Amino acid sequence: MMSEHLKNLSWIAVDWGTSKLRVWLLDSQNNILFHICSDHGAARLNPEQFEDTLLELIGDSLPAQGSVPVICCGAVGAQQGWAEAPYIQTPCPPPSFDGATQIRTKDHRLQVFILPGIKQPSPADVMRGEETQIAGFLSETPNFDGVIYLPGTHSKWAHISANEVVSFRSFMTGELFALACKNSVLRHSVADTGWDDEAFKVAVADAMSRPSAFAANLFSIRAETLLSKLSGATARARLSGQLIGIELAAARPYWLGQEVVIVGANGIATAYQTALAEQVVQARIVPAKDMSLNGLLAAYANRPQ
Amino acid sequence: MMSEHLKNLSWIAVDWGTSKLRVWLLDSQNNILFHICSDHGAARLNPEQFEDTLLELIGDSLPAQGSVPVICCGAVGAQQGWAEAPYIQTPCPPPSFDGATQIRTKDHRLQVFILPGIKQPSPADVMRGEETQIAGFLSETPNFDGVIYLPGTHSKWAHISANEVVSFRSFMTGELFALACKNSVLRHSVADTGWDDEAFKVAVADAMSRPSAFAANLFSIRAETLLSKLSGATARARLSGQLIGIELAAARPYWLGQEVVIVGANGIATAYQTALAEQVVQARIVPAKDMSLNGLLAAYANRPQ
Repeated sequence: MMSEHLKNLSWIAVDWGTSKLRVWLLDSQNNILFHICSDHGAARLNPEQFEDTLLELIGDSLPAQGSVPVICCGAVGAQQGWAEAPYIQTPCPPPSFDGATQIRTKDHRLQVFILPGIKQPSPADVMRGEETQIAGFLSETPNFDGVIYLPGTHSKWAHISANEVVSFRSFMTGELFALACKNSVLRHSVADTGWDDEAFKVAVADAMSRPSAFAANLFSIRAETLLSKLSGATARARLSGQLIGIELAAARPYWLGQEVVIVGANGIATAYQTALAEQVVQARIVPAKDMSLNGLLAAYANRPQ
Repeated sequence: MMSEHLKNLSWIAVDWGTSKLRVWLLDSQNNILFHICSDHGAARLNPEQFEDTLLELIGDSLPAQGSVPVICCGAVGAQQGWAEAPYIQTPCPPPSFDGATQIRTKDHRLQVFILPGIKQPSPADVMRGEETQIAGFLSETPNFDGVIYLPGTHSKWAHISANEVVSFRSFMTGELFALACKNSVLRHSVADTGWDDEAFKVAVADAMSRPSAFAANLFSIRAETLLSKLSGATARARLSGQLIGIELAAARPYWLGQEVVIVGANGIATAYQTALAEQVVQARIVPAKDMSLNGLLAAYANRPQ
C-alpha cells in the first residue's frame, strides 16, 4: 500500500478492534509519520490472516534491516483474534506493557506485542481495547476520580479511582440497536439516517421509568409506522432512546452523582450526553480515537528498556 | 406437487404466516383431504409470487370447471403480502368472513379471500394470523373469559371477554432471541439445542426483578463463556430466561390473577408455561396449528350463502 519505507520509523501503534483497524507509524519522538484506518477488523480475519493484513498495509515501510516494535490492543487479542492475550483482573490499573503477549511472526522485521484486556469475575465481564482508551485518558488526566463511559457495540461503564479500574459493566446496547435496525421487522420502519431529538428524549424517559416494556415498545414502533405513518427518523430516535434508556436505568449507580467522561465519537456520544443531561449529569466527551493512541503511547513509553 | 385433483375438494384453508405456509384441502364436511406445510412464508415472496406459489402446491388438485374458495389468514394480508387486507379495531370479536378482502387472481379456478387483521390505536399494535387462532379457540370455548397468550416471533397477550378481543400487546421477544442467537456475539456462546431448566428459572426471576439490566446480563453470558466455560445449553436457557422474564414483568397486568391459555407449540410454549408456573399461574397449552384451522373453519362456516 505504501510505496517506500519511512526512514524515521521507530515503532507502530495498532488499535485492532472488531470492526476497524487503526495503525499509526511513529518516529522516536512519537510524531505521527503516517496513519491508516481500514475496515479489516478482527471479526473478518482468521488467526493466520492478521500478519498478512498488517504487512499488506505497512510492509513497504519496514526497514530492510532490524525489527520494529508493534504494540497492539483490542479484539486482536481475543480468542478468535491473532493470538489470545491474557486478561488482568479488576481492581487494577489499566494494562501497561507489563503482561503484554509477544507474537511469533513469519516476518522477522515485526516484533508484535498485544496488550492484555481486563476481566472482572463478578458480575462476569471483559474488555479488550477500551482499557487502552482508559489508559490514554488517565495519561492526560492522572488524578481523575469518576466514571468513564465508552459507547460502542458492547458499551462499557468503568468506575475509576486512584488510577485503577475499580469495576465495570458492559451492555449489548450498540449491537442490539444495529440488529434491530438491519435484521428485525423494524428495518421496514427505521431510516438509515435522520434524528428526532424530542422523540429520543421521550423514549429515554419512558424506558427509564418502565424498562420491562421495551420489547413491546419496540413493536409499537412498527405498529405506528403501519397505523399512523411514523417517520423513519422518529422511529430511529425512538429505538435508540428505548435502548439507551434501559441501559441508563441499569447503569444508574455508575452515573448518579458522578463525574462522567464519555470516550466516544459522533452521534452516539452526543446521544448519551443528551440523555445524561436530562438526568442533570453534565458529561464531557473526549475523542475515542485519540485516547486509543494515547494509551498505546503510554504503554510504549513504559516498556522495559 | 400433487398429481391428480381431489374429487371431493370443496374449499381450501390457508394459514400464510411470515415464515410458514400451511394449506388444508377440505371437503364439504370439513374433512381434511390433504395438508401441506411448506417454508414458503410471506417474508420470502413478492406480491406477484403468492398466486404461483399456491398453484404450484395445489394447482393439480383444482377442478377443471368452476372455482374453489380459498380462505387465508396471516402475513399474506400485510403491506408486503399478496394484497393488503384492512384491520378491524379493538375492542372487537376476532374477524369472521365479514370484512374479508377478495383478491383478483389470474387463475379463475381460485376464489381467494384474506381475513382482516386486528389493530389497536393505543398503545399502537397490530396482529395478523393470531386473531384467527383466537377465533379458533373461541369456537371451541365460546364463553372463555381470560387471557390468550400466543408466543412467536412477535408474541401477543390478548385479553378476551364476552367473545371480544378487549386489548392486546405484542412483544418482539422471539425475534430478539433469534437475532441474539444467530447474529450477535452470543452466537459464540449459545448452543443450537439443549436446555438448563434451573438456569432458565433463575434468569426469569432475575430479569423480572431487574429488567433494566438485561443488556448487561446478555453480555455477562458471553463473559462467563470466556471466563468460566459456561455451557452452550445453559447459555441458551439463560438468554431465553432473560428475554421471557422482562416480557413477563411488562405483561403482568395480562397474567396476574387471570386464566391464561397458551396457543403455541414445542419448547417455547413449555418455557412460558414453566415461567408462569413460577409465578403461581397454571397456564394451559393448546396447539397453535389446530387453532388456526379451527379459526378458518369458523370463518368459512359464517360466510354469506
